[in-house]
Amino acid sequence: MIPKADGGRVDMENEDMKRLSPLLTDYYQLTMMQGYHSSGLNARQACFDIFFRRHPFNGGFTIAAGLDDAIGFLEGLRFSEEDLDYLQQSGNFNPEFLEYLAGMRFTGDVWAAPEGTVVFPLAPFVRISGSLDQLQLVESALLNIINFQTLVATKSARICQEAGEGNVMEFGLRRAQGFDGAMSATRAAYIGGCAATSNVAAARALGIPARGTHAHAWVTAFSDELAAFRKFVELYPANAVLLVDTYDTLNSGVPNAIKVAHEMESRGEKLIGVRLDSGDLAFLSMETRRMLDEAGLEYVDIMCSSELDEHIIHDLRIQGAKINAYGVGTRLVTADGDPSLTGVYKMAAIMDEQGQWRMTMKKAEGLKKSTLPGVKQVYRLYDRKGEMVADMMELEDFPPDFTQPVRGVHPVIDSAYKVYEDVARVEPMLAPVMKGGQVVAPRPGMAAIRARVKSQMACLHPTMRRLLNPHEYKVSLGPKLYELTKKMRGTI
Amino acid sequence: MIPKADGGRVDMENEDMKRLSPLLTDYYQLTMMQGYHSSGLNARQACFDIFFRRHPFNGGFTIAAGLDDAIGFLEGLRFSEEDLDYLQQSGNFNPEFLEYLAGMRFTGDVWAAPEGTVVFPLAPFVRISGSLDQLQLVESALLNIINFQTLVATKSARICQEAGEGNVMEFGLRRAQGFDGAMSATRAAYIGGCAATSNVAAARALGIPARGTHAHAWVTAFSDELAAFRKFVELYPANAVLLVDTYDTLNSGVPNAIKVAHEMESRGEKLIGVRLDSGDLAFLSMETRRMLDEAGLEYVDIMCSSELDEHIIHDLRIQGAKINAYGVGTRLVTADGDPSLTGVYKMAAIMDEQGQWRMTMKKAEGLKKSTLPGVKQVYRLYDRKGEMVADMMELEDFPPDFTQPVRGVHPVIDSAYKVYEDVARVEPMLAPVMKGGQVVAPRPGMAAIRARVKSQMACLHPTMRRLLNPHEYKVSLGPKLYELTKKMRGTI
Repeated sequence: MIPKADGGRVDMENEDMKRLSPLLTDYYQLTMMQGYHSSGLNARQACFDIFFRRHPFNGGFTIAAGLDDAIGFLEGLRFSEEDLDYLQQSGNFNPEFLEYLAGMRFTGDVWAAPEGTVVFPLAPFVRISGSLDQLQLVESALLNIINFQTLVATKSARICQEAGEGNVMEFGLRRAQGFDGAMSATRAAYIGGCAATSNVAAARALGIPARGTHAHAWVTAFSDELAAFRKFVELYPANAVLLVDTYDTLNSGVPNAIKVAHEMESRGEKLIGVRLDSGDLAFLSMETRRMLDEAGLEYVDIMCSSELDEHIIHDLRIQGAKINAYGVGTRLVTADGDPSLTGVYKMAAIMDEQGQWRMTMKKAEGLKKSTLPGVKQVYRLYDRKGEMVADMMELEDFPPDFTQPVRGVHPVIDSAYKVYEDVARVEPMLAPVMKGGQVVAPRPGMAAIRARVKSQMACLHPTMRRLLNPHEYKVSLGPKLYELTKKMRGTI
Repeated sequence: MIPKADGGRVDMENEDMKRLSPLLTDYYQLTMMQGYHSSGLNARQACFDIFFRRHPFNGGFTIAAGLDDAIGFLEGLRFSEEDLDYLQQSGNFNPEFLEYLAGMRFTGDVWAAPEGTVVFPLAPFVRISGSLDQLQLVESALLNIINFQTLVATKSARICQEAGEGNVMEFGLRRAQGFDGAMSATRAAYIGGCAATSNVAAARALGIPARGTHAHAWVTAFSDELAAFRKFVELYPANAVLLVDTYDTLNSGVPNAIKVAHEMESRGEKLIGVRLDSGDLAFLSMETRRMLDEAGLEYVDIMCSSELDEHIIHDLRIQGAKINAYGVGTRLVTADGDPSLTGVYKMAAIMDEQGQWRMTMKKAEGLKKSTLPGVKQVYRLYDRKGEMVADMMELEDFPPDFTQPVRGVHPVIDSAYKVYEDVARVEPMLAPVMKGGQVVAPRPGMAAIRARVKSQMACLHPTMRRLLNPHEYKVSLGPKLYELTKKMRGTI
C-alpha cells in the first residue's frame, strides 16, 4: 500500500498494488523469462507452491495473510513504456521479448487458503499455475507481499492472545521497515487482532480505526505538566488518555493526572486513562492503580507501551500488572525475534510437450531445502470437538476417501506415519481465487478476515497456541503423494 | 521509494518521497498539532534531535542513511483535498485547523551529518527546527525513513567488511518487509557497500547495477540439468553463473558445470562461475574449488547464497571456504538480529513567549529513556593518524576551543570524564541541509555517499569494527552542555 497524497480508498487497499511495476522482481526472473522464450518453454504450463518450512517465533501456528494485496498485484500486472525503456536500455533484452512483455497480462490460476487461515509448515497455502514465464516473473513480488503480512499477522495473533481481545493498538510506524513496512504491517496487525492503529494513512487506506494519546513533546511544550494535561483533556475529553512518565511517573505524572481527573468530574466528564511508557511496567502499573483507586478513580484505565511483545505481556500478566490496554509498536511491525518468514515459491509440476504434467522436485543438500512434487490439495481434518487434528497433502487428482482409514506419512521421515480414521470433518484448504487471470472469489474484506482468524484460532488445541515449546501439529503426505515423493527422491 | 509503473528517475529516487501523504504520521501528531493551535503554541519555534541509544547488532559503529529521502518528504509535504476530506470526515478536526493544514508547507531548518557518516549513540545526527506543529507532524515519517535506512546501511557495512570489497550482491526482495522494505533496503545496502542488487525496480530508481544468476526452477523446467545449463550459457555467456545444487551439488551440478565450461572453452567463451545455495558452504565450496581446479577451471568463480550474514561469512573465511562472491538477502534487508534501530526524535528546546530558547528534557524512569537539552552541535575529534577519537556534544552557542584542553563528561555518569588535548582535527558533524523549507545543500548522489562510508570506516580503529565486543567509542558532553544537563536533572 502506498500512502499517496491523492487519497486511499476505504476497503479498497489493494488498488494500490495494481499500480506496482512488474519490475518489482529479481533480475534473474527477467533473464530466465527471456530464456524460456528462446527455448520455446515460455508458454509451458507450470504449477508453483507457496509454503514455509517452519513456524516463525518458535510458535505452533501461522496466520496466512497478504493474499488480497497479492491478487491486486497480479490483476494489475503490466509493463509500462517506461519499464520497457529501462529494460531496453540495459542492453540485455531483445526486441521480440520486449514486445511480448508489452502485451503481457497475468492469465494464470491461483488457488489459496483464505486470508486469516491458520496454516502449517510444508503445506502449500497458495498454489499458482499458468505459463511458466508469467509464474517466474511474479515470484519475487508475491513472496514479498505474502511472507511479510503472514509474519506480522502471526506476531499480532500471538500478542493479542496474551493481551486479551480488543486490548492492543498498533503503534509501529516510526520503527517499521520503510513506509510500506508500516502500511502492510498495519494491515496484517489488524488481521491478527489489533483493535486500531496509530498510522493515519493506513487507517484511511484500510478503513480501520486510527487512535493515539499524546507524546512527551506535548508535555515539554508547555511550561509545566499540569498545564499540558489540563489543556489536553479540555481539547479532547473523549480521548483523554494522559502520558504520565515525562518527568516522574509516581511523584508528578500520576498525581497531576488525578488532579485533572477530579477537575473533569466536577465538569461531568471522565478521564479515560493514563499511559506508562518507561520504567518497570509491572511495578508502576500496580502503584498507579493503587493511587488511582485511592483517589476514587477506579474507572480510569492504565495503558502501557515501551518495547512490548507477547513474551513481555505474558510475563506482566503473570506478575499481576494492572494494565487495561497495550500500545505495541516496534516488535510487532518488525516481527522481532524472526524478522522474515521462511516462505518459498517452488515449482511442483510442469507440462511436457505432450501436455502431460511432469512432477518436479528440488533435492537440496540435506532435506532442509527439498520440495514436494505434484499439483497438490491440502485436506484439514477435524475431530468431533471441532478441533484441528492434522493436515494431509495429496495429489489433487487423488482425493482421499476419509470415510475409510487413510495413512498419512511424515513429510521427511518415511518410517513415521499415522492412520487417520473417524475423521469428523474434512476441509480442502485450497480454493480458486483467480482463473485465467480473472478474480473468481469475492474479496472478503477486513472484518471477515479478522473473524476467520478468531474462528480458526478457536479450533486450535490450547497447547498449540502456547508461546513456549508448543505442541506440534501433524502435517503428512497422503498415499499417492508419498508414493510419488519416495520414487522421485530415489532418482535424480 | 515506490516501484511505480510510470517509471523511476535515475538518481532522482527521492522524487517519490515528495508524493507521500503527510497522513503517513501517527494520529496523535495531528491531534497534538490541533491542540498546539488552540493553545497558541503552533508557531512557537522548537528544536528536535534525531539520535539512537545504542548501536544495532551489538556493533561498534552505525552508518547514517536515509537523509535524502527524508528531505524529499519534507520538500513535498502538503495535504491534498483527499487527505483533508478524510480528516474532516473523522469528525475530530475543526474547520479552521483543516484550512490551516491545506496551506501548510514545511518551512523549517534541517541540520544533519551527511549520509554515509559513521555516527554514535546519543549524539544527534539530524537536528530539525521550525514551528512546533510542523515538527510534530513530520516525526513519524522522518523516523520511519531514517531509522530503517540507517539500520540496513550499518548491516550492509558489517557484511561487506567481512566479505571484502565488491563481493556482495543484495538479493533480499522476496523476504523484505513490504515493497518499500525492499526498495529502501536496496538503497541502504548499496550505501553500505553492496556492489549490486537483484531488485530491478530499485536498480532503476537508484541507477545502480541489477544482477542475478538463475533459479532452481530454470533447471527443473528442462528435462535434465545439463540441458538447462547448456541453454543458459548459450543465452547469457557474459552472465554465465550456474546454480549447481538443484539435485546433487558434487555428483551432478558441478560435473555438469565443468562439462559446460569445457564446451564454452571450445567456443572461445568462459564460464563465469557457479553458485551454491544450500548445504555446508565451507565443505562444498572447497570441494567445488578442487573439482574446478582439477578440470583446469581455476578462473571459474564460486558464489554462495543461503541465509548469509556477517557472522556466517566471517566464519566461512576462517574455515578457509573458497568463495569469491556472496549473495546476501534475508538477513541483510530485514536487519536480522536487530530489526529496528532505536532511533528517536526528541524535543531539545522551545522558544518562550519572549523569543528566548527554553531548554527541554525528558527525565524518564531510570535514565534509559532520558534526553539531552538544548540546541546542540556535535564535534568529532581526530588524532594525528586521522583516526576518530571521540565525539563531543556542546550547545551550539558555545563552540569549544580545542586549541586548549577541553573536558568531556560521560552522558550519564557525572564522575566519568576525559580531558581532550592535542586534537589534530575537529569536524562539526551537523551542517545545514534545509533552511526555511528550502534545500540549501547539494544532493550528494549514491556514489558520493558510498565513498563517504568508505572514508569514514577507514578512520575507525579496527577494534571498533570488530563484530564481537567492539571497542567502545567515547561520546561526551562539553562543559556548557554538561552544566545545563546537570542542572535540569536536578529539577523537574
